[in-house]
Amino acid sequence: MQKHGGDVYRQHYRMDYSVNVNPLGTPESVMAAACEGIRHSAQYPDVDCGALREKLAKAERVEGNQLIFGNGAADLIFSLALAMKPKTVLLPAPTFAEYEQAVKIVESRVIHHDLTEAEGFVLDGRLLEKITPEVDMVFLCNPNNPTGLPVGKRLMAEILEKCAACQAILVVDECFNEFLDRPGDYSMKEYLNRYPNLFILKAFTKVYAMAGLRLGYGLCADQELLARMREVNQPWNVSIPAQYAGVAALDETAYVKRCKDMLSGERDYLKEQLEQLGFRVFDSQANYIFFHAWPELWQEMADRGILIRDCSNFAGLEAGYFRIAVKTHEENKELINTMKEVIKWQRQS
Amino acid sequence: MQKHGGDVYRQHYRMDYSVNVNPLGTPESVMAAACEGIRHSAQYPDVDCGALREKLAKAERVEGNQLIFGNGAADLIFSLALAMKPKTVLLPAPTFAEYEQAVKIVESRVIHHDLTEAEGFVLDGRLLEKITPEVDMVFLCNPNNPTGLPVGKRLMAEILEKCAACQAILVVDECFNEFLDRPGDYSMKEYLNRYPNLFILKAFTKVYAMAGLRLGYGLCADQELLARMREVNQPWNVSIPAQYAGVAALDETAYVKRCKDMLSGERDYLKEQLEQLGFRVFDSQANYIFFHAWPELWQEMADRGILIRDCSNFAGLEAGYFRIAVKTHEENKELINTMKEVIKWQRQS
Repeated sequence: MQKHGGDVYRQHYRMDYSVNVNPLGTPESVMAAACEGIRHSAQYPDVDCGALREKLAKAERVEGNQLIFGNGAADLIFSLALAMKPKTVLLPAPTFAEYEQAVKIVESRVIHHDLTEAEGFVLDGRLLEKITPEVDMVFLCNPNNPTGLPVGKRLMAEILEKCAACQAILVVDECFNEFLDRPGDYSMKEYLNRYPNLFILKAFTKVYAMAGLRLGYGLCADQELLARMREVNQPWNVSIPAQYAGVAALDETAYVKRCKDMLSGERDYLKEQLEQLGFRVFDSQANYIFFHAWPELWQEMADRGILIRDCSNFAGLEAGYFRIAVKTHEENKELINTMKEVIKWQRQS
Repeated sequence: MQKHGGDVYRQHYRMDYSVNVNPLGTPESVMAAACEGIRHSAQYPDVDCGALREKLAKAERVEGNQLIFGNGAADLIFSLALAMKPKTVLLPAPTFAEYEQAVKIVESRVIHHDLTEAEGFVLDGRLLEKITPEVDMVFLCNPNNPTGLPVGKRLMAEILEKCAACQAILVVDECFNEFLDRPGDYSMKEYLNRYPNLFILKAFTKVYAMAGLRLGYGLCADQELLARMREVNQPWNVSIPAQYAGVAALDETAYVKRCKDMLSGERDYLKEQLEQLGFRVFDSQANYIFFHAWPELWQEMADRGILIRDCSNFAGLEAGYFRIAVKTHEENKELINTMKEVIKWQRQS
């Protein structure tokens, strides 16, 4: 079992279902731009990410100075923790593991808010009680990872308001937001200017399938917070190929639409198929699906050349929970057929 | 004046003498490999940098597990500070500014050991007295930045021994070591196995002119220290193009030799020319030259399209100190001619 998804380096796999990037692959224009960037890489990167900042500010409809860039979104999670040194951090469980890893560096006390299987691992208003004046920072991944369920804007606004009242920073990780059918229904961007305690985390990684290039960004109106984040990181953290790739990616609106059109059908197909196989499937709206099977499934699939994400190392989850990406129909059929083989092989042995 | 060298993004410059990378530019093979890496960048990077680790271990003649990789060497400076949280840090002044920036995150007390102009800014045995049991970490850049002077192995060994006796980690930044005429005379690599308190910092950035790609590494025998460094950083900090580029770069021994052959002549040429212009020139042995002129020189050169490094923001230096790279003969001639123009213009005005 691997600690993270996507470790295709130690063993050869036919298909990698453990990472959640755009199944259409990196757009050609993005790869070409990154290669062009490499031709300029004797220079240091632009510490301000000037060209990327200007274009992204327009695309996101925010001020350029409300953006901060990172070597992937993970880089910014660490910068946030180091810059703010929160004494007490509230995290749902399960959620993306890097939040906890980052705040542990500054010895934050972590309060887990357990999402329960009985409630389908969905965040609800119970979280509000946990936001008290002693809490300094709250991380919410929306839609959540590994479950793929988004929290509606009304509850998110209540959480944000409660955080503001308690002087806590709310970090909303919207790295998977663009894969939702209606991203605007869930993004908290409209609250940025009114709530300087809101930090929204986003990435090019997933939407444009450029995980290996490393490019994430944050949105925040608090200039002092952004200045502190810059102080706890090297100035050259975003490579030139990543900056060039990001600029090109922002023109790929048709590609993103094509991906989403495909995803919604394939998500339904996979959910139905997984349920027919007898797995307990949770109601994802993202580009990945969370389900419960038996602990050995990871190895059984790996033996057949398919890597899936074992979620047993997420806080709050035990062995038997898995996450798979949603990919193209051909690949999804092959995944399901391989799962059928596993079940058939089990019955015979 | 810019805080760092290499900011060619806010204004167009004909020539950038402010950064110290290999003047021959990024090797074609390295750019081709990085582009090949981009084709695989829908995946996450190999968190172990497996292929790069294996090849570099052979090249450096160390064990694979004695290597740690970073998003440039700067990334590792921050990881070192965060992992070890030194209470007291000893730094020469002037030296590379990122050491101090990094340890300030963990609120280290910084003791500066002032290198004086009277001694040519050369580190000597006086440093030994400053290494006391209260010191937890010492950073030494060898050859030093911005001066370009290396400290001999005998003194370095005494410093290392004193650090060991005081339970302090000695971080030796050898990012410019390969540009010395005889790198082996100065590298501390042979002490790695005997001194687990030794951490050597190196980079592909300078030697292979790949600053924009970001690839640095560290050498250390202390497995516990390396494990702690991995805990304070994201696992995907080194991009796929950087890993591919690094693997290809290690075959470029002829290119490195060509660069060094050129450098030693050009370094002498530039020193002589700068002295003839009346500047106070220090005796660099690296791929850059440190000298003293007048504070306005930066702007006067910038107005003529040439960026040089104003060193007035290095701790321990005042206005009037500059650093220039050593480049190809054509470029160096143009630099000197432009300086002559500046002087002529001054006399006329």
